[in-house]
Amino acid sequence: MSFASVVDVLSGEIAVGSEITVRGWVRTRRDSKAGISFINIHDGSCFDAVQAVVPSEVDNYQSEVVKLTTGCSVAVTGTVAESAGQGQAFELQATKVHVYGWVEDPDTYPMSPKRHSMEYLREHAHLRTRTNVTGAVMRVRNCLSQALHRFFHEQGYLWVSTPIITASDAEGAGEMFRVSTLDMMNIPKKDNGQIDYAQDFFGKEAFLTVSGQLNVESYACSLSKVYTFGPTFRAENSNTSRHLSEFWMVEPEVAFADLNDIAGLAESMLKYAFKAVLTERADDMAFFQQRIDSGVIDRLQQVIEQDFVHMDYTDAVEILQNCGKKFEYPVAWGTDLQSEHERYLAEVHVGAPIILKNYPKDIKAFYMRQNDDGKTVAAMDVLAPGIGEIIGGSAREERLDVLDARLDEMQLPKEQYSWYRDLRRYGTVPHAGFGLGFERLVTYVTGMQNIRDVIPFPRAPKSADF
Amino acid sequence: MSFASVVDVLSGEIAVGSEITVRGWVRTRRDSKAGISFINIHDGSCFDAVQAVVPSEVDNYQSEVVKLTTGCSVAVTGTVAESAGQGQAFELQATKVHVYGWVEDPDTYPMSPKRHSMEYLREHAHLRTRTNVTGAVMRVRNCLSQALHRFFHEQGYLWVSTPIITASDAEGAGEMFRVSTLDMMNIPKKDNGQIDYAQDFFGKEAFLTVSGQLNVESYACSLSKVYTFGPTFRAENSNTSRHLSEFWMVEPEVAFADLNDIAGLAESMLKYAFKAVLTERADDMAFFQQRIDSGVIDRLQQVIEQDFVHMDYTDAVEILQNCGKKFEYPVAWGTDLQSEHERYLAEVHVGAPIILKNYPKDIKAFYMRQNDDGKTVAAMDVLAPGIGEIIGGSAREERLDVLDARLDEMQLPKEQYSWYRDLRRYGTVPHAGFGLGFERLVTYVTGMQNIRDVIPFPRAPKSADF
Repeated sequence: MSFASVVDVLSGEIAVGSEITVRGWVRTRRDSKAGISFINIHDGSCFDAVQAVVPSEVDNYQSEVVKLTTGCSVAVTGTVAESAGQGQAFELQATKVHVYGWVEDPDTYPMSPKRHSMEYLREHAHLRTRTNVTGAVMRVRNCLSQALHRFFHEQGYLWVSTPIITASDAEGAGEMFRVSTLDMMNIPKKDNGQIDYAQDFFGKEAFLTVSGQLNVESYACSLSKVYTFGPTFRAENSNTSRHLSEFWMVEPEVAFADLNDIAGLAESMLKYAFKAVLTERADDMAFFQQRIDSGVIDRLQQVIEQDFVHMDYTDAVEILQNCGKKFEYPVAWGTDLQSEHERYLAEVHVGAPIILKNYPKDIKAFYMRQNDDGKTVAAMDVLAPGIGEIIGGSAREERLDVLDARLDEMQLPKEQYSWYRDLRRYGTVPHAGFGLGFERLVTYVTGMQNIRDVIPFPRAPKSADF
Repeated sequence: MSFASVVDVLSGEIAVGSEITVRGWVRTRRDSKAGISFINIHDGSCFDAVQAVVPSEVDNYQSEVVKLTTGCSVAVTGTVAESAGQGQAFELQATKVHVYGWVEDPDTYPMSPKRHSMEYLREHAHLRTRTNVTGAVMRVRNCLSQALHRFFHEQGYLWVSTPIITASDAEGAGEMFRVSTLDMMNIPKKDNGQIDYAQDFFGKEAFLTVSGQLNVESYACSLSKVYTFGPTFRAENSNTSRHLSEFWMVEPEVAFADLNDIAGLAESMLKYAFKAVLTERADDMAFFQQRIDSGVIDRLQQVIEQDFVHMDYTDAVEILQNCGKKFEYPVAWGTDLQSEHERYLAEVHVGAPIILKNYPKDIKAFYMRQNDDGKTVAAMDVLAPGIGEIIGGSAREERLDVLDARLDEMQLPKEQYSWYRDLRRYGTVPHAGFGLGFERLVTYVTGMQNIRDVIPFPRAPKSADF
């Protein structure tokens, strides 16, 4: 007798006739008049539960089996058999049922087998993975993360963990959280009345990182091909379905690469990840297609099959201005595109993912490489049908004189960037990279509407439970 | 003509006679009297640099090639040839040298080709990956992280990202950093004079996590086999070579597992990771063996080959008391073992990794499963020769009544653990897990003495540079 996962049974990996024990949680129980109970057991190893057919001859049939409710934990021993019923190919003919744990009061069990709202599930984030939808999300999330690590590893990229706590607001990508151990009831002050951060844990003011990019550039400028995969933070009061205060980012950075190189990298990375999900998580994807978003599989399939269309920002503005469609926000060269514009371009105008390139320098960060026209920088956004921007990246300014002029122009203090400037003083190389918001990717792949439902324990303004 | 990595050339993957371009940084340049320059170029793809043989016929030979110094960035085009010299099998017969970037002032270049102290390299964390030692560490670090993800993925584990920001000090594993957006010059107070954290970003006091364990238990109690791999934090004023304020942890958590199951998991995980390093990073490991720690490869090989020895804490105490060796710290049942004791057991008494089990409950956390003797808990530490404790884990108390009694005994407020208690109220299952400090693992594998040298940008008291 050996233990088996539900997926091993349902996939046919275990020979019919084998005696095994499956351990998991009861999804449903149904009793026939003939004195047989059908118990569906899930263990998280795949979308479906396995059916155990429990005859009344089992020792504890009356005392326990017929009292099992959703959420009870059990070990069921029995023989793998071909299933006579519809749906699944295999089932378990039970000879023994062991109950590990009961549900305290089935009537008040928070994960009772009725339909719950996503808000309700969020309030029970410690139990929601017991539901079909959150279980499926988390398996797809895992599949994507594994695929991304594998993609980069196979191509010779090194994973680099950039720091979470940082003493510089160097990228200026957003509002930051302060990290401190100062006694809040007794903040030390300097003679001039300012806070004496020299007495704080790190000897200076410290924050949570908004991006690992500047740090990982130093790794690209020696190890050539690197990527981060780690948490980043925004202390912005954005209570929307697309924002999290804490989210995971994937940031590849590539020495000797230009904008087109990383546009190609972004395209092949997304295709690789989507193929992995469709292959490895077909069961969960079928569920999302059926219950969450009927277009979700087609959309992924199209991204896999289509060539991404490259387009200049300047051309995109012209297209949007002349398309005859009335947008909520007007379009003008020099302003950032809104989600409605991005989606029009990807969904209506082209009908495929777009890589939009060469944005006006005034709406982009200081580190982006200036183009020869003096007006634009070598930045790109990847716009996907159905969601809009999913990746943002750029070539980095590797010319010290140009970088310095830009820092001056933007009134950024050079001292603060001294180590970053060192990378340009000593054997500088052209390099480029991009950032992918991992939870945005998971919403795109699953069709889930709210980003808080694709991360285990979401953090948002006024919300840091569990 | 195509681009190639240094590793592709040196491994013989590219046919002799092929014309390629290698891009990287100059490690050394040597000029022969015959008017030929030998330039060693590294690009991070492997330990060794490739030698480019540059004849004086190259266009910019006098104007640029003979001026190249350590750290300059170049693209060298040429033909792959078998190397006549010692050492490497292949070299590049250059026909063209393009210089991307010079070193501003070679005399003051911080990574000049002399020997630097580890402290010095730490002060130049943005440049130190250009050195042999840090490059090797970071490749091994990447190899270990990829191997760990692969190990768990192959066995059906799901990666779970537990929250970084947390509002509960539930585990009590150590001092915590506060995360806040309150205006430090103007802290809001309540009528009773206390700080009004309701006005803070998350509406309550928030911290950086010390462990994802409690959170990930909720995932094990539905998805069965899960693991975390993410950053954790300790605000402890420990300025030692073994402590970091920010470090990465790997925490598998397994439903239906007992202490012996996760002891077995820890053993197979370490063996898998060490095999991966010895196979995939033989070049870097040869360097560590030669320059950092002459026993390092043997030690890994032994861990791979030996069965881990299981031993009870109680037996270990008796062995230590009767071994005749004089320890700095006395040994008595009921006290925690010190590093000297752990190393004696693993290195002298057994000569193999030890899994020490069943510690006194009073020196362990509230969540560890109580044994029937009423005195010990089902906890384990993995002690490795040469380093001592490398993994700590336990079975978790899954019985609500026992858990509650322990919370009372330790005067921990039940309300704070209500969601954790829910896991025991609804279909509780035996489960167990452990934590591996990822940087401890990297120091063990590389033989590096200071943990700050195995993480890209170390954070420690008074130190959060870059």
